[in-house]
Amino acid sequence: MQSPLIKKLVDAFTCLPGVGPKSAQRMAYYLLERNRDGGEHLSVSLASAMEGVHHCDRCRDFTESELCGICQSERRDKSLLCIVESPADVLAIEATGGFQGTYFVLMGHLSPLDGIGPEDIGLDQLKTLIQQEKPAEVILATNSTVEGEATAHFIAEMLKGTGTELSRIASGVPLGGELEYIDGGTLMHSFSGRKPYLS
Amino acid sequence: MQSPLIKKLVDAFTCLPGVGPKSAQRMAYYLLERNRDGGEHLSVSLASAMEGVHHCDRCRDFTESELCGICQSERRDKSLLCIVESPADVLAIEATGGFQGTYFVLMGHLSPLDGIGPEDIGLDQLKTLIQQEKPAEVILATNSTVEGEATAHFIAEMLKGTGTELSRIASGVPLGGELEYIDGGTLMHSFSGRKPYLS
Repeated sequence: MQSPLIKKLVDAFTCLPGVGPKSAQRMAYYLLERNRDGGEHLSVSLASAMEGVHHCDRCRDFTESELCGICQSERRDKSLLCIVESPADVLAIEATGGFQGTYFVLMGHLSPLDGIGPEDIGLDQLKTLIQQEKPAEVILATNSTVEGEATAHFIAEMLKGTGTELSRIASGVPLGGELEYIDGGTLMHSFSGRKPYLS
Repeated sequence: MQSPLIKKLVDAFTCLPGVGPKSAQRMAYYLLERNRDGGEHLSVSLASAMEGVHHCDRCRDFTESELCGICQSERRDKSLLCIVESPADVLAIEATGGFQGTYFVLMGHLSPLDGIGPEDIGLDQLKTLIQQEKPAEVILATNSTVEGEATAHFIAEMLKGTGTELSRIASGVPLGGELEYIDGGTLMHSFSGRKPYLS
């Protein structure tokens, strides 16, 4: 006996990650009962973002202009190129404030089983970019997952012979982490990646 | 360095219940990266629901027409009126398939501290409805919370002298519940609400 418009709205909400039928119903009723302005605002924001946001021509991050803010900026060090999997990774690194280079966003990782190959994550574009800009160092900052490692490995193979120095972000015990509670794989990585101390 | 459109979308998502900045960002990026059609569909569904859904003239439930499906139906027993707090409660009761009467939806409960008085939950309309339709029984099915009980009590006082029989849904041990793990208040209620067995 639910009205068709509400049913449609509840269905539409379930397309969001982590939102099942119950949460979707809660969201729909919440907006209808208490926050119609919020609902309209969300509708307009969604429409304009879906319409206006596309990929940066250089780094594939999301942007409304041809080049994103970081690629446009003259303060960023173009000799340092950091390769990440997603725009959220760029935000996380930017939030630290410790990196002044530029990015290349793969928008995913290699996943042959899902049919995601090198061209889907923009590796042709990455190769062209590196040949044009010749960065001194390329930092592979894909996730420390099986797919992320495989993608990093594939990119490293691809860039062999371009003369660019390649590095991979360190894997090990997180700050504040206690050895007792760290998984074995991470612990092993933190040993094999050990560095001379106070040198 | 986040694009203004994305920032606006993330902000708009935080108006949803249970969605903080991190989930909002995840939702925005998910739609942009993988489900633009879903995003557009959600935008359209939101706009049409916010625009087209209003309250049923008789029972205050959400509907697109003047009367909701239940109030329009000739199969429903109008001599039985069930008073609930929200449209979600109507759905929950309808899902059981065991109630054939009609509803009146308060769209909230009395809450003097939040400035929600009798007129905000449509009690004038309820009184008029009961005077017109003269249902044989009114079932108070507000939540079993302090506010729900207070609202039920207020409605009962208001309907004194209208000659309508009033009832309150039973409170007690849920089906499958074990006494050992039930809170004291519920257990006490299940004792004071005991019924003759096999009679």
